[in-house]
Amino acid sequence: MEKIILDCDPGHDDAMAIMLAVGNPKIDLVGVTTVGGNQSLEKVTYNARSVLEMAKATDIPVHAGCDRPLVRKQEVAASIHGETGLDGVELPVPTRPLDSGHAVNWIIDTIMASEPGTITLVPTGPLTNIAMAARMEPRIVDRVKEVVLMGGGYHVGNWSAVAEFNIKVDPEAAHIVFNEPWKLTMVGLDLTHQALCTPEVQHRIDAIGTDSSHFASGLMDFFRKTYRDNQDFIDPPVHDPCTVAYLIDPSVVSTRRCPLDVEIHGDLTLGMTVADLRGPEPSAEECHTQVAVKLDFDKFWDLIVDAIVAIG
Amino acid sequence: MEKIILDCDPGHDDAMAIMLAVGNPKIDLVGVTTVGGNQSLEKVTYNARSVLEMAKATDIPVHAGCDRPLVRKQEVAASIHGETGLDGVELPVPTRPLDSGHAVNWIIDTIMASEPGTITLVPTGPLTNIAMAARMEPRIVDRVKEVVLMGGGYHVGNWSAVAEFNIKVDPEAAHIVFNEPWKLTMVGLDLTHQALCTPEVQHRIDAIGTDSSHFASGLMDFFRKTYRDNQDFIDPPVHDPCTVAYLIDPSVVSTRRCPLDVEIHGDLTLGMTVADLRGPEPSAEECHTQVAVKLDFDKFWDLIVDAIVAIG
Amino acid sequence: MEKIILDCDPGHDDAMAIMLAVGNPKIDLVGVTTVGGNQSLEKVTYNARSVLEMAKATDIPVHAGCDRPLVRKQEVAASIHGETGLDGVELPVPTRPLDSGHAVNWIIDTIMASEPGTITLVPTGPLTNIAMAARMEPRIVDRVKEVVLMGGGYHVGNWSAVAEFNIKVDPEAAHIVFNEPWKLTMVGLDLTHQALCTPEVQHRIDAIGTDSSHFASGLMDFFRKTYRDNQDFIDPPVHDPCTVAYLIDPSVVSTRRCPLDVEIHGDLTLGMTVADLRGPEPSAEECHTQVAVKLDFDKFWDLIVDAIVAIG
Amino acid sequence: MEKIILDCDPGHDDAMAIMLAVGNPKIDLVGVTTVGGNQSLEKVTYNARSVLEMAKATDIPVHAGCDRPLVRKQEVAASIHGETGLDGVELPVPTRPLDSGHAVNWIIDTIMASEPGTITLVPTGPLTNIAMAARMEPRIVDRVKEVVLMGGGYHVGNWSAVAEFNIKVDPEAAHIVFNEPWKLTMVGLDLTHQALCTPEVQHRIDAIGTDSSHFASGLMDFFRKTYRDNQDFIDPPVHDPCTVAYLIDPSVVSTRRCPLDVEIHGDLTLGMTVADLRGPEPSAEECHTQVAVKLDFDKFWDLIVDAIVAIG
Repeated sequence: MEKIILDCDPGHDDAMAIMLAVGNPKIDLVGVTTVGGNQSLEKVTYNARSVLEMAKATDIPVHAGCDRPLVRKQEVAASIHGETGLDGVELPVPTRPLDSGHAVNWIIDTIMASEPGTITLVPTGPLTNIAMAARMEPRIVDRVKEVVLMGGGYHVGNWSAVAEFNIKVDPEAAHIVFNEPWKLTMVGLDLTHQALCTPEVQHRIDAIGTDSSHFASGLMDFFRKTYRDNQDFIDPPVHDPCTVAYLIDPSVVSTRRCPLDVEIHGDLTLGMTVADLRGPEPSAEECHTQVAVKLDFDKFWDLIVDAIVAIG
Repeated sequence: MEKIILDCDPGHDDAMAIMLAVGNPKIDLVGVTTVGGNQSLEKVTYNARSVLEMAKATDIPVHAGCDRPLVRKQEVAASIHGETGLDGVELPVPTRPLDSGHAVNWIIDTIMASEPGTITLVPTGPLTNIAMAARMEPRIVDRVKEVVLMGGGYHVGNWSAVAEFNIKVDPEAAHIVFNEPWKLTMVGLDLTHQALCTPEVQHRIDAIGTDSSHFASGLMDFFRKTYRDNQDFIDPPVHDPCTVAYLIDPSVVSTRRCPLDVEIHGDLTLGMTVADLRGPEPSAEECHTQVAVKLDFDKFWDLIVDAIVAIG
Repeated sequence: MEKIILDCDPGHDDAMAIMLAVGNPKIDLVGVTTVGGNQSLEKVTYNARSVLEMAKATDIPVHAGCDRPLVRKQEVAASIHGETGLDGVELPVPTRPLDSGHAVNWIIDTIMASEPGTITLVPTGPLTNIAMAARMEPRIVDRVKEVVLMGGGYHVGNWSAVAEFNIKVDPEAAHIVFNEPWKLTMVGLDLTHQALCTPEVQHRIDAIGTDSSHFASGLMDFFRKTYRDNQDFIDPPVHDPCTVAYLIDPSVVSTRRCPLDVEIHGDLTLGMTVADLRGPEPSAEECHTQVAVKLDFDKFWDLIVDAIVAIG
Repeated sequence: MEKIILDCDPGHDDAMAIMLAVGNPKIDLVGVTTVGGNQSLEKVTYNARSVLEMAKATDIPVHAGCDRPLVRKQEVAASIHGETGLDGVELPVPTRPLDSGHAVNWIIDTIMASEPGTITLVPTGPLTNIAMAARMEPRIVDRVKEVVLMGGGYHVGNWSAVAEFNIKVDPEAAHIVFNEPWKLTMVGLDLTHQALCTPEVQHRIDAIGTDSSHFASGLMDFFRKTYRDNQDFIDPPVHDPCTVAYLIDPSVVSTRRCPLDVEIHGDLTLGMTVADLRGPEPSAEECHTQVAVKLDFDKFWDLIVDAIVAIG
């Protein structure tokens, strides 16, 4: 069982990550925290609660975190996720009230109260909460098991030629998180652009025939449309659950260790995750960061389908 | 009575600010918070407690905050404040234990629990804690009365040709604090380089003849030496208490409103507080920031001397 | 006799600099070169020739140089100098044809053909030509006598809070020029904002009663208006001739040696001329750059009036 | 016949480019210009003349250009090319004297004196000369046929994680060249790291058995060693002749049109050639820049071998 904190900004693919985390037996979803990103904090927090309701996981606490990036002005991804952040589906009204306590404090308290090396952080939005937590309580850095995040790309961008949305909207937070010495896996666009929801995949989801499968399929319909209209994709890349899939089964995502850092000063490269891929792969002792490289497409979608089935 | 939170990194001049806040009847020192700056967080937190002990103010809570800047690597001012951060004097052992709770949370909780418009923030170190508090709980921005900080300079630098230590070591935090819409007064080097502890002033302090006056005078001896050796000063500028003096009696420090911002990208100008002094002075409605311009030297030192006398 | 090359972009105050250089017996104006700046290269080149015509100096060659900044997109100062670059006066048609040969080559050839240490460069526009010449023929740097330029400011800006037009529109060129080891005097806004054409001054010019005095007065009328409307000035600062006045009589402009450099990366400080004024003034051996500090107002305007009288 | 100006800094691979240009009948090498880069201007200029001597091409003029980058301090590639810039071979003494006239002027004059659309610029060093020429005579931009340069990389760096030597050492010059509207082909590391001089290739060169083949092979021996020791390569990538090969036969190098720009402000990304590869390939009307993608290895080395044979 992997104990994870999912720090997210749902978002269509964040919703799929929540469902995978809830529905897969190898994941112990300790809690969900939210951060302003794809949409405003208020909207994504509601969305997270609503997706957990849909996933019948009202035992999972949700804590709201930072509502905007550290330094830069806020920029949301309405062109991709719509005005609500989860446009295209009917959102169930959450029955569990929002948990009290700021996400940053809850993340710190949860890590400090758990055995060292047992909690994995899974950020799938801007890294504001995680950066704040690392600065408020530096001891969490040694204490978490690892960080597996969706964001960035070593050769691919989507919010500029070379930068990805989550990193570009709060590059200073990403700079903080990438430069702490914890084990960090960047599941970037290089990987997630392989996680395409093809028509065949969507037929498998449809065929499940439950409320949650209809919900997932509705998300994919909207996501397909905005990715076609705004990002020149035929099938939408379902980024965020790739992180959870990697934690369930590392063979789903092959990785390569390499130094990683975040550009916070470039004009054209602001928010680029700079990977140094020159020379041979460094050892784990030499290098605490790695990038996701290759997705096992079939295994990935099997995990998603199985999770939706398990939710019922 | 001005209710203030003093967020500091003692530091010889921070110590003088604490004594002024404790000894002056117009200041209600709600609490002291500490931040890594002149020296490590551990050292400056001990120093704050020790100075409060010396000032017979063990009723004042001390909360430790962030131990390093948001984004940049930490840089301390040992060349000015020595290895302990308060070199040159015997530090009394604090009898009050360090208060629990992170400074950032305590600042937020204190502001949110007080009447709106009653708490003034007085940062005299890097702005890390204040920036973190503003990001974790954005509502504090409207709720504080004002921010009166020591840092920066519109025409003067000390940590580079155009940047001052507190701002330069955490420019991103300063950028956050300067860009929030609260009323903000920058008491920068332009002002504090007028607050020189001349031999005449120091004779007045010596003549008080108490433990706390000896303590203050010992601080000034060391400060004089490092400022002579490292900053080409004859008498040391006693920066931090200028903020408290302004709050006690605004006629001690004349000000001018002007737009202020912090450079976070320059090579030569990193951490510069950029003041736009062109054209006529804007109105308070047009401009929420102002700079300190002219010190009433005699009034300022009268306040310091009176405070040390009051401490006894 | 000071042999000077005036590299300019007339411009109302450039025109005054040309007239001062032509009309003062201590200046040997070897040639005028032009650079895109206050207006397009084509316009300012025509203006330079026209002003020389007005000043009865058709023996002076004019060579056109670079039409745009090295790296940045071109920005002109039409708000100050109008659409022609010399709005407000009737421009005489030049009788001398434009000299052939690029300004950069002519500057290089002239310096290399002259005795070492005899030619002074007087740039009063963006530093594009001078930077290009220093890169094409590095030997000119040792060979010129000195560089006395109008641009920048150590405490004052006009094209941003902290940057002046000539430097800000081509900061990379300025960076090149300021970092070459020639003796360099920056006559910046700190100085030139003292060179105000007050009504009293203008009455003296009017009283001369010649074509060239009417021309100069017409320039001042327009300059006064745009400076009132766009820069919050009552009387216009007549920047460029301050350089020539300093070369005629150094007692007109007091100076201070200090390290100088140009910010080419800041967001708020792009094009700022960063002067390090901390500590005691360095010696000429330690420091090859200096800034103009204080203008002798009466002597300055006497020189201008005398020059216009001399032109006849 | 392609009329080319080869602007280079020999350099082992520059030498191979010169030999290919001299030995191939489809190339009319109008002249060679030199620029400080792999080594000092003096050294690379001597090297260019010496390689032309070896290639029996003493009819080709050589003009020396800029000795250092526009803005940055000079950095040479002695770790790759040795102290002379062509370490590892005996250099023949050039019989043709160095031609007079600065490279920048000669490039301008040659282009302006030729029919429009007939001269192709082939820079294989830092872009200082080309940038200077474009600024001194903007009309050359419309007049050259195209620019085919070696430098940069859309996914690969060698002088940092994401920047290549030629671009990184003078990023401002590259920024100028990439932003002019001429047709520009970037033959970057993505392509040239395919042009490996394998042992099989070198055996073919050796088998020619002429002075020039021994010379080429000697260059490759040294290049192999420094690339093994300093860049983790087994066989050395022979960058520069890929440009000439593309001009001889476009089928040797496949290309993709995409917007290109140069980062001049990043900390981690300084000198990166930022390619926007998102979405479908733009048309030639939409986009004047393209990148080299795939090398036809066999065709490439056939061209090199044939050229060495032709030189005799």
